Amino acid sequence: MTPPRRPVGRRPGPTQTRSAILAAAQVAFAEDGYAGTTIRRVAAAAGVDQALVLHYFASKDGLFAAALRADPPLRELVELTEEGDVRTLGVRLVRRYLEMWEDPGRSGRMLAVFRAASTSPSAAAMVTAFIGEAVMVPLARSIGSANAELRATLAGSHLFGTSVARYVLRVEPLASLPGEALVAYLGPVIQHYLTGDLDEPLL
Amino acid sequence: MTPPRRPVGRRPGPTQTRSAILAAAQVAFAEDGYAGTTIRRVAAAAGVDQALVLHYFASKDGLFAAALRADPPLRELVELTEEGDVRTLGVRLVRRYLEMWEDPGRSGRMLAVFRAASTSPSAAAMVTAFIGEAVMVPLARSIGSANAELRATLAGSHLFGTSVARYVLRVEPLASLPGEALVAYLGPVIQHYLTGDLDEPLL
Repeated sequence: MTPPRRPVGRRPGPTQTRSAILAAAQVAFAEDGYAGTTIRRVAAAAGVDQALVLHYFASKDGLFAAALRADPPLRELVELTEEGDVRTLGVRLVRRYLEMWEDPGRSGRMLAVFRAASTSPSAAAMVTAFIGEAVMVPLARSIGSANAELRATLAGSHLFGTSVARYVLRVEPLASLPGEALVAYLGPVIQHYLTGDLDEPLL
Repeated sequence: MTPPRRPVGRRPGPTQTRSAILAAAQVAFAEDGYAGTTIRRVAAAAGVDQALVLHYFASKDGLFAAALRADPPLRELVELTEEGDVRTLGVRLVRRYLEMWEDPGRSGRMLAVFRAASTSPSAAAMVTAFIGEAVMVPLARSIGSANAELRATLAGSHLFGTSVARYVLRVEPLASLPGEALVAYLGPVIQHYLTGDLDEPLL
């Protein structure tokens, strides 16, 4: 017997289904946080069965890791390292990073990742691994010096802290400072961490 | 009628009762987080009635704010600004701050405050207000320049981000770096934010 042929254009294929689940998961993690997100609700939002979500992603942790990878705004930061002069990387990196937080479509997801990492040790481990492999390793590669990974984490953790203070905790006067003023203050310090002499005192 | 005199030494006075409730609240917030802490359990741990907790602190938010104030490890950082030369404040501030995170008795509470702030907007507002008035304002006063509050928040948000990356997310190689090496890297940058020329490019 010939199996019945699947009608063309009627059902989404596996790739589209997987994408639909990931899109629903991104919305759920951003809106309900890590603890508040359930496989059941993500499945319902994507219009699929729970079993299919588990088939593709195995667990909520698996779904979170895939959602992080499928829409990585942080990955864009890495493209920066492949363009332009490494001596101006500090200012360019700070500017692009702040733009991401100020884009309303993205800041919710950035916040969701931050909240998930702060409340779930498994989510924290995934965020750390993702930032490490997708952002820090390529950044370190572009710096090219012996202690490049240390440089990348010094720069990255500074940017992270300042963005949380400005956009999440809304600490003043940091929160009200124009973006370009902040770029001017942070840019030289980030550049120092990336390419300066770490063993020499600053000016 | 003369009211019966309260037996001396039998019952704790109001100050002791309040302190016992705060001590129980600090343990509860550190162990169970902000969301997991209930007035009922804090009252039980302190051996008092729930109504008494509400009498003193009005709400869980009130209890959290008081617990933050009653045992403020961050307040110690401020004492630093009153001793020694302001030109070496960067290194001293970084060293003392890292010591707090590395003290096992304190790091749990630091983490509890961080987690509460990241999951509860009201807790975040309290942490921000507390750090502002108890740490940043005195720090800014000791710096004494026109944009001292901006300087204090640039330094504070950098320290915050780096400690979260090192002690919470455990990002390598930051997490395994000896404390004094990190003091040597961060000290000059924190000093730059506190007293350097923010409008000049670094070396």
